[in-house]
Amino acid sequence: MSGGAGFDSATLISAGYALTSEELQQAGVQASDDVAQYALRLGDDALILAQNMLWWVSRAPELEEDIALGNIALDLIGHARVLLTFAGSAWDKTEDDLAYFREEEEFRCLHLVQFPGHDFGEMVARQLIYSHYAFEQWKRLEQSADETIAAIAAKASKELDYHVDHAEEWTQRLGLGTEESNRRLQAALEYFWPYVDELFQNDELIETLGPIAVRPSELREAVMPRITEAIEQAGLKVPDVKQAVTGGRRGEHREALGPLLAEMQVLARKHPGVTW
Amino acid sequence: MSGGAGFDSATLISAGYALTSEELQQAGVQASDDVAQYALRLGDDALILAQNMLWWVSRAPELEEDIALGNIALDLIGHARVLLTFAGSAWDKTEDDLAYFREEEEFRCLHLVQFPGHDFGEMVARQLIYSHYAFEQWKRLEQSADETIAAIAAKASKELDYHVDHAEEWTQRLGLGTEESNRRLQAALEYFWPYVDELFQNDELIETLGPIAVRPSELREAVMPRITEAIEQAGLKVPDVKQAVTGGRRGEHREALGPLLAEMQVLARKHPGVTW
Repeated sequence: MSGGAGFDSATLISAGYALTSEELQQAGVQASDDVAQYALRLGDDALILAQNMLWWVSRAPELEEDIALGNIALDLIGHARVLLTFAGSAWDKTEDDLAYFREEEEFRCLHLVQFPGHDFGEMVARQLIYSHYAFEQWKRLEQSADETIAAIAAKASKELDYHVDHAEEWTQRLGLGTEESNRRLQAALEYFWPYVDELFQNDELIETLGPIAVRPSELREAVMPRITEAIEQAGLKVPDVKQAVTGGRRGEHREALGPLLAEMQVLARKHPGVTW
Repeated sequence: MSGGAGFDSATLISAGYALTSEELQQAGVQASDDVAQYALRLGDDALILAQNMLWWVSRAPELEEDIALGNIALDLIGHARVLLTFAGSAWDKTEDDLAYFREEEEFRCLHLVQFPGHDFGEMVARQLIYSHYAFEQWKRLEQSADETIAAIAAKASKELDYHVDHAEEWTQRLGLGTEESNRRLQAALEYFWPYVDELFQNDELIETLGPIAVRPSELREAVMPRITEAIEQAGLKVPDVKQAVTGGRRGEHREALGPLLAEMQVLARKHPGVTW
């Protein structure tokens, strides 16, 4: 739990308050190792997905969409910042230490977020799956027994609610658009579907955290019907494909993560500790 | 002038109101050909610079900086959207027609904004030059005789004011940082300096527009002292280099623009007229 000594800001850290990375630092909160591990998972999902979304911002098919995707990516980086700051409080590390100076096997993100998604349909398919999942997760984390997690969740769930709307709108638009746009979105759903199971897997950390965390397995029955309904209403089919081997939460990743991290980390690593 | 028939929204288009692309469309404003040509210049500067800034968003040396650069780029895309929408009103074209379906020689941006700037010092050096210039330009355009330009300027100048602060902060931080960061920022200033003269050149369109436009030559004495002061206060030297041949406003561009446009336009061109 993040309370205890040094935790002296009941004003900043309370449900409904939009906690930022700077405010969290000022509040002097310190996470336990377990809570930090959990924050790292949530933060890495957001950070890595944001990196992949950002690729799109200068390449979207409409200027309006450049801005929408940019805002979604910046929301996610905002979540990553406060979550990595919180995680780092357990180990005397900053958000930047954790973002730029961890090795690949130290990241804890889902496989779903690791792929580039450089087809527009792929971007939409992944957002449909991820945003429904993350929205529900954050919604429930508003009740987390850890007050910092609960405060972060209050802001994140509102933003994810918008991400869901955006993903559903594009799912409809492509699914019910042309034969080609339907075909490509269907292919994109098939592409990402093998990584869906991992979203709902529990493990030892989740059991240890109890009411601080959300049990991923319990999210399934809330999340999957919404995703499948969106798919079917857009004239698409729910894929029936084999699930892939998982491992993101243990640091066993897809090969796409390495190049992404290299690009993200190069500048900070080239000049460690200098003024930028 | 953009007034005249069909211009029925005194509420939306007035100084101080933050005009968006959608609102401008609704208002049914129609630009004259000359005003549209001017809006295109301003819009292309913002659009092309935004594309180059966005490259940085997933590669900044700090997560906080990812967000700052992202917001700056999204501000610029916002300006581009409303300016291209306004320009397009003269020729029955949308912002997306103008962004994605013009050829290279039809763009009207300054050479300064066309280079990738993939060194962090280069990004900072260009922002120092560009944001001081654009801030002053927008500030004066708040008094434009064209009310749509004036309304766009009211919002843009506020945002550019923040971009100036951001650029000055980094100029200080790198200039007064390490020997290496100083050296690289100095090199970056030398790199961009040959493209400074173009910012202050008048031409026939400017003369024709009279009080609708700002005369670029008149910006020089306001802008250059601020840039040189920032450079000197950061322990750097004002470059003394030869000015390059210009031509951005006539559609004669640097070779960096072609690949940038290819990347930006590929998706929209691959599926012209479909639902995305």
